[in-house]
Amino acid sequence: MSLETISENRSFGGVQGVYRHRSAATGTDMTFAVYLPPQAEDGPVPLLWYLSGLTCTHENAMTKAGAQQWAAEAGLALVFPDTSPRGEGVADDAAYDLGQGAGFYVNAAQAPWSPHFRMWDYVVEELPGLVLDAFPLDPAAQGITGHSMGGHGALTIAMTHPDRYRSVSAFAPIANPTESDWGRKQFTAYLGEDRAAWSAHDASLLMAMRGYPGEVLIDQGASDQFLDLLRPEALAHAMVARRQAGMFRMQPGYDHSYWFVQSFMRDHVLWHAERLA
Amino acid sequence: MSLETISENRSFGGVQGVYRHRSAATGTDMTFAVYLPPQAEDGPVPLLWYLSGLTCTHENAMTKAGAQQWAAEAGLALVFPDTSPRGEGVADDAAYDLGQGAGFYVNAAQAPWSPHFRMWDYVVEELPGLVLDAFPLDPAAQGITGHSMGGHGALTIAMTHPDRYRSVSAFAPIANPTESDWGRKQFTAYLGEDRAAWSAHDASLLMAMRGYPGEVLIDQGASDQFLDLLRPEALAHAMVARRQAGMFRMQPGYDHSYWFVQSFMRDHVLWHAERLA
Repeated sequence: MSLETISENRSFGGVQGVYRHRSAATGTDMTFAVYLPPQAEDGPVPLLWYLSGLTCTHENAMTKAGAQQWAAEAGLALVFPDTSPRGEGVADDAAYDLGQGAGFYVNAAQAPWSPHFRMWDYVVEELPGLVLDAFPLDPAAQGITGHSMGGHGALTIAMTHPDRYRSVSAFAPIANPTESDWGRKQFTAYLGEDRAAWSAHDASLLMAMRGYPGEVLIDQGASDQFLDLLRPEALAHAMVARRQAGMFRMQPGYDHSYWFVQSFMRDHVLWHAERLA
Repeated sequence: MSLETISENRSFGGVQGVYRHRSAATGTDMTFAVYLPPQAEDGPVPLLWYLSGLTCTHENAMTKAGAQQWAAEAGLALVFPDTSPRGEGVADDAAYDLGQGAGFYVNAAQAPWSPHFRMWDYVVEELPGLVLDAFPLDPAAQGITGHSMGGHGALTIAMTHPDRYRSVSAFAPIANPTESDWGRKQFTAYLGEDRAAWSAHDASLLMAMRGYPGEVLIDQGASDQFLDLLRPEALAHAMVARRQAGMFRMQPGYDHSYWFVQSFMRDHVLWHAERLA
């Protein structure tokens, strides 16, 4: 599979790269970013997937999450996928929370979304094959995290494939989308009216049904402007009711922005590095 | 008020003491333990109240929680009250979870408990006056923690008097006693059938009603044999629904014992020391 290099820059002794490829899953060109720490020069390193939120591309977290310094210290690679297919011929919606920039990490089954909006397959199947082939990464040492819609993606993907993702965390995840306007609208559009199909993409329901074999770290800002949409209390209840190993931290004064994410990025990178070592 | 010294021993450069006094609140002799760190030789130090669980005296945590080493390092005093009045003439019950050793940190309003079972007043009013008078302690720097029934006490007392207790944490607290057999039985006996009086002594209800102005730390063992009685999920939900600052940690493999408590005592002592500094 051919990979076009858009840019590569030295960063904290490693390399921050941005790449483009033709995706079979989405039927479009897709852009993503990879950070390789200095340790990757000596052989395969563990990798942490970072899934972004609504409206984001591969670029937001790459430039605003402050993750590279800690990844370099811990010897961890980072992969930042885009959040949806994009471009002409790809369906879209005027709203910021549907269509391009809002893939919700599902495979759409409904028109007009189904031809391209297959972000589950893209993130879980296609992109891993590509990056594991192209970069010095250890396939047995993968963790996953994300912010908001990306936290939803990270949690649902990790609980579905716990064998592959040996560590998981989330920043202010959309925690209970089947009961939120961040979820019902998108699931109706992408998956259809059958709510049975929705539950496989709801972190609180998956937590209640199956949980995660390792420890789970959740950070949530107490001054997040989207708390009513995120529904963190549903996930907190499900975690403790299941006796899920891990911790839920409510961070006073923090909002939903990358100022929040970057403030706790060190904790998350070290959390994953410890578990992927 | 006269204080009888039962024992004093050097411990981690400080002094572990056990004392007895005549309590006006309970109308009995009461025994308690105080650990003074080395820093207390130079002036008043912050203090951390540790409330114990069912069946415990002042002695259990003093000998099994491993708190002194961290308190010495952090310059924090520890106070370990007993869990109930004791002795002849004090009502009791054959069950381990009612009567002597099971005061539940309430003021009993019902016969035969009301004459002596006034542990709320004892812990919140009488004993603080006594220890603040007798030892070099800073009244403006008090925190509170506890285990099981003592975690219930710590949380309910801190939320009722947040002005006085500037930090709070709990190990495996009885989190929702109004909905548990650890609670309904005792509240019925001590407080009577009027459930309105119970809610002031339920950490999950208090969390929903008023919360705590600072950060709250909860540790819970995932293999705790009493999870169904503790109901930690009610507290976790209430904390996050209120956006309560702090964190709830589910610790995999740990049970309800002091092997659990001592494993996380360092975190708790440092948590309080940081907030009382």
